[in-house]
Amino acid sequence: MTAEQNIIYDVVGIGNALVDVLAKVSDKFLTERGLTKGSMTLVDAKTAGLIYNDMIAEREVSGGSVANTMAGLAALGNDCAFIGKVYDDELGQKFKRDIGRIGIDFETEPLLKGPATGRSIVLVTPDAERSMFTYLGAAKLLCAADIDENVIAMAKYVFLESYLWDFEDSKEALFKAAKLAQKHGRKVALTLCDVNYVVAHRNEMRPFIEEYVDLLFANENEIKALFDTQDLDVALDKIKSMIEIAAITRRNKGSVVVSGKIKTFVEAEKVEDVVDSSGAGDLYAAGFLHALLEDKPLGICALIGGIVASEVITHYGARPETSLKSLIRKKLMQYMQNS
Amino acid sequence: MTAEQNIIYDVVGIGNALVDVLAKVSDKFLTERGLTKGSMTLVDAKTAGLIYNDMIAEREVSGGSVANTMAGLAALGNDCAFIGKVYDDELGQKFKRDIGRIGIDFETEPLLKGPATGRSIVLVTPDAERSMFTYLGAAKLLCAADIDENVIAMAKYVFLESYLWDFEDSKEALFKAAKLAQKHGRKVALTLCDVNYVVAHRNEMRPFIEEYVDLLFANENEIKALFDTQDLDVALDKIKSMIEIAAITRRNKGSVVVSGKIKTFVEAEKVEDVVDSSGAGDLYAAGFLHALLEDKPLGICALIGGIVASEVITHYGARPETSLKSLIRKKLMQYMQNS
Repeated sequence: MTAEQNIIYDVVGIGNALVDVLAKVSDKFLTERGLTKGSMTLVDAKTAGLIYNDMIAEREVSGGSVANTMAGLAALGNDCAFIGKVYDDELGQKFKRDIGRIGIDFETEPLLKGPATGRSIVLVTPDAERSMFTYLGAAKLLCAADIDENVIAMAKYVFLESYLWDFEDSKEALFKAAKLAQKHGRKVALTLCDVNYVVAHRNEMRPFIEEYVDLLFANENEIKALFDTQDLDVALDKIKSMIEIAAITRRNKGSVVVSGKIKTFVEAEKVEDVVDSSGAGDLYAAGFLHALLEDKPLGICALIGGIVASEVITHYGARPETSLKSLIRKKLMQYMQNS
Repeated sequence: MTAEQNIIYDVVGIGNALVDVLAKVSDKFLTERGLTKGSMTLVDAKTAGLIYNDMIAEREVSGGSVANTMAGLAALGNDCAFIGKVYDDELGQKFKRDIGRIGIDFETEPLLKGPATGRSIVLVTPDAERSMFTYLGAAKLLCAADIDENVIAMAKYVFLESYLWDFEDSKEALFKAAKLAQKHGRKVALTLCDVNYVVAHRNEMRPFIEEYVDLLFANENEIKALFDTQDLDVALDKIKSMIEIAAITRRNKGSVVVSGKIKTFVEAEKVEDVVDSSGAGDLYAAGFLHALLEDKPLGICALIGGIVASEVITHYGARPETSLKSLIRKKLMQYMQNS
């Protein structure tokens, strides 16, 4: 049997299975509690409870970085599976229901004992910046046994999130998935999730990326942190020799893609009113990979990534709420007319 | 009859029909004669004769900026025609023979009275820089009557050189060709040929480009001169709103392509020993347009442009001397293996 005959999925995503609990808060709310703005902080069940009790939860939506990317890909018509750990509780069932409704296969066995389904408390300040306080719960118990070789072998891409690096079990799962992908001749995509995580794990991440990763997603701060530099050009020069494609998001400056001798800068979509930047990077990755799977040029992949990201930042929550397909068609049509 | 049914040529090039007379000289040879290094200077028959008598001509090869580009395109398998003016003398017959041998249709009536076939004395200094002293002769008598509407209507692209701007007759020919291309729904490509020409004509060139040109080729100095700025980014920002695609060559820094929201930087091919940079821009344009005609992504167009340009600078003369097709295949294969 050749490699191609076995393909069932475009992408299998492996990451934290989390439900996002969203609340709008003031900057004061953060400072009073000594909470760091703009990044992701892991909290225990107790701290999560304290924050949760003080705020008014606006919405609960399924989240998780790679899970969001899979949701975007599925909305764009790609065939996806997801591997991640929930507990068999109300939030866990919500996560499974949400991901199933958008057509993503999700067969990881839920925990029947141990910590509850993980949640990310997302506090959105008036500047649309989000600060995340994540209680990982069941998510961090994803382990090597959850990585099904058959599923990896059936997907063109395995899509990993670097949050998995933080715990031995989930890190083992990540390495197992990467090795199986390599064994079966599949591509590996990795998204760097948070600058603090990159700083903590970069000495292990760099050789992992060089050995296993074909496609890297990161924002500007994360890629700079990976190479411990303040200079984006230095970071881009280093990553290009380690990898096939790296796509770096730059907020309102758009994104840049490096691949061998070619470096492509793409302007950001103009967004009138940014409501909540949660999921922007995750959905950029969805749009980019969707276009890449259709063999689009890298500049067009980045453009479509930007279009998809622009949708998710106009509302609360990190999952798309409009037809991404028609949004892309509309934007590309406008774009053709203007050029 | 729809537009597509009528296509016979990929590209019809319109430019100066010149024969290049090549000589290796020292820097002193230039300074002693008060000749400006690195650019193109128009000279009269008498000055051309004076330079010619003092030097040892190494080779005579057919040249002319757009004619070189057509030669590259033909070598790459594209169907091309050329429109330009020679006198019915020895050099004119050489020009016609050379261009015919590589399969380019060239039907422009030669002059039977008036100035001789134009020639460009190309003095190559030890740093591989070329300084050109051009006696236009018959070339500048190209006129509107030479632009055959049928030929324009039969080509996907009309490819013009900005040298034509310098004389009323050839400028009329250039405008007529652009207008006919627009009338028949054909694309117009323009190459900016020399920074002095751009400075002299930029106030007329900018509206011409905005109105007629789809694809612009220029080097870094020329595009900056077009907008009277020292800042490449400023120039790129301005050109992108006027045009579909602009491809800007940057010598050993490679090239940059702007198209709408997308800006693509491509590194230069590494060339061990640059012998004569004549024709580098012309052949870059050939490689770029060849790839564009195959609907390749712009980054790949620029990469192939760079590969083709790298061939022509390793020997004297501005026409390719090896199989460009196999060179591209070989380089792209190396490139895939390294990434």
